[in-house]
Amino acid sequence: MTEASAPATGGIATRGPVLVIGTGLIGASIGLALTSRGVPVRLRDASPTALALARDIGAGELETAADDEPTLVVVAAPPDVTAGLVGAALHTFPTATVTDVASVKARIQSDLEGFGTVDLTRYIGSHPMAGRERHGAAAADGDLFAGRPWVLTPAPATTSASVRAVRDLAIDLGASPVEMTAAEHDEAVALVSHLPQLLSSIAAARLLGASERALGLAGQGLRDVTRIAASDPRLWAAILAGNALPVRSALREVRDDVDSLLAALDRAADDGPLAVGAMAGIAGVISAGNDGVGRIPGKHGGSRRQYTEVTVLVPDRPGELGRLFTEIGEIGVNIEDFQMEHSPRQKVGMAMVSVLPGVAAALVTDLEERGWRVVVE
Amino acid sequence: MTEASAPATGGIATRGPVLVIGTGLIGASIGLALTSRGVPVRLRDASPTALALARDIGAGELETAADDEPTLVVVAAPPDVTAGLVGAALHTFPTATVTDVASVKARIQSDLEGFGTVDLTRYIGSHPMAGRERHGAAAADGDLFAGRPWVLTPAPATTSASVRAVRDLAIDLGASPVEMTAAEHDEAVALVSHLPQLLSSIAAARLLGASERALGLAGQGLRDVTRIAASDPRLWAAILAGNALPVRSALREVRDDVDSLLAALDRAADDGPLAVGAMAGIAGVISAGNDGVGRIPGKHGGSRRQYTEVTVLVPDRPGELGRLFTEIGEIGVNIEDFQMEHSPRQKVGMAMVSVLPGVAAALVTDLEERGWRVVVE
Repeated sequence: MTEASAPATGGIATRGPVLVIGTGLIGASIGLALTSRGVPVRLRDASPTALALARDIGAGELETAADDEPTLVVVAAPPDVTAGLVGAALHTFPTATVTDVASVKARIQSDLEGFGTVDLTRYIGSHPMAGRERHGAAAADGDLFAGRPWVLTPAPATTSASVRAVRDLAIDLGASPVEMTAAEHDEAVALVSHLPQLLSSIAAARLLGASERALGLAGQGLRDVTRIAASDPRLWAAILAGNALPVRSALREVRDDVDSLLAALDRAADDGPLAVGAMAGIAGVISAGNDGVGRIPGKHGGSRRQYTEVTVLVPDRPGELGRLFTEIGEIGVNIEDFQMEHSPRQKVGMAMVSVLPGVAAALVTDLEERGWRVVVE
Repeated sequence: MTEASAPATGGIATRGPVLVIGTGLIGASIGLALTSRGVPVRLRDASPTALALARDIGAGELETAADDEPTLVVVAAPPDVTAGLVGAALHTFPTATVTDVASVKARIQSDLEGFGTVDLTRYIGSHPMAGRERHGAAAADGDLFAGRPWVLTPAPATTSASVRAVRDLAIDLGASPVEMTAAEHDEAVALVSHLPQLLSSIAAARLLGASERALGLAGQGLRDVTRIAASDPRLWAAILAGNALPVRSALREVRDDVDSLLAALDRAADDGPLAVGAMAGIAGVISAGNDGVGRIPGKHGGSRRQYTEVTVLVPDRPGELGRLFTEIGEIGVNIEDFQMEHSPRQKVGMAMVSVLPGVAAALVTDLEERGWRVVVE
């Protein structure tokens, strides 16, 4: 925006300098990604040691009083301090676009509107859907956003130039920008992020009452369910309190499920599995879970369920999987998704090939003609 | 036990023939593991197609009327039919040791005691702590039990010879035998298995109310929490109803946590994050989850995680995946596991190739030399 604003390298739309306020995992990862793409980045953090660490890993240079005004400010701070930092940045830098990356959006926007005196045409909330259970700049990763959604929540006042600046940032970092209202975002993350966090923590909390011998029976299922229970309590309390209404609404449904399960277990405890309604009450919740988990799209977007799965038995010999793929290519069918079930001790592996529904039947016929054993479920 | 009983191969203590009743995931995996170790296995299942599939993958031979009496019978059926099958096996085979592998133990034992007429000196309940969210013989894996605990729950009447027979089976399959009472087992699995299953299902069930756009924001945390929500409703209703008392007790604690979270969210919704008690109420649950997950001991040899994953970008054209497999074969690296992540919106798929850690670095170099784009995590 000024003569001094640095041109970025080929293909990168973001023009620096970019000021990153808050050099935790997300801020440092943004700094690292921009710096590696030739965009000048300056860093600010309330903690001098966190700041020095972010600089040392290559996330950018320290902000100084002599700096030109940044073109873009990214506030990457806990949600309960974000609105204040955004408001201050809009005030200090009268031409910069300011975004934040907090996990809740509606409350920050309403807090900013409540300030009254700041220029919200240059503000656009955003939320890169990326993270790790490790935190801090030491865990920063310039590829953290690659292939991940990056939600943009423009307010009515936000200019299209501001939207474009943050959309460019998301794309430059390999993310897919998705526009939503702040309310739509908050309801979505309540279901796909905040509630799973709470249920993971609640499952893990029960282990406080388990014996050492009981804990010795822990398997991969427990580890998966409770992995995110290792998350930071202070940060998560701020996130959940900042999104209280949508989380409360989802948690009330959880309580209904728990109550109906308790009623079914009461019946089973009294009268055994043949108790009227016990099995249906329990199976209903598990079955709803089946349907819910089936709605989660593949890791890089796109629903898995729009494909038909064809399972082929593959002999456990080198080159057989390559031959299968080559022959599917010769048949002219594109493989949309693929999963291998393989055990070193099975005589065969099960290759689960997902294809468009319209070509599945012909693929099965052609593969069988070529001598492959196809399992039809 | 008879002249016809087959000697097993070196180092294997289990003498066949072993009869496996129920050829789902667990039964077929036991059959596969024993067969690969040279122990003769016979298979029985109420479903002829399930039985044929188990035989075809190499889990054993079909049981015939001409068979000698087995030395060991393993009932691998849903928990609500297990006691009946165990009782029948004890009656049919007057010298065989009979075990079952159901996920609940106390009710099966008390049902058997209630029969009154069977010889319980030859019965010992057991529970290999292994499983997958996929079920049926198609998902069978001879290494499923490697490094996993295998709980033995001898009853007062069980002879030490019967305990030894099932202990040998567990060790032969690479598992670690752990002796507990049936009641101790049931309380343990309520906390480390049954409750996590319910909370995973409850989290996944909330996704039924999520929009497609919300589901597009799903990340790894949601996927981990809800992975086991894909489990079989009928099987899990039988497991949970069969362990109603311990599960109910844990679920009542869950309801208390949910109620205190709802109270904290009410305060945060009314008065914002500074509401008295709101932050502490939320952070308390997250913090208890930190402590609980910290109690889970280190993993015992989970077979899927001993590989290194190399992610290769594959252009979305027929034949490219075949070319990748062919070239990995030319490089001389064996693919241990494979998963494809693919999005129709993106012009590339992500092929996640699992290989032994020792060859991963060389594979990355060789693939890059051949022009493949490899994502290093």
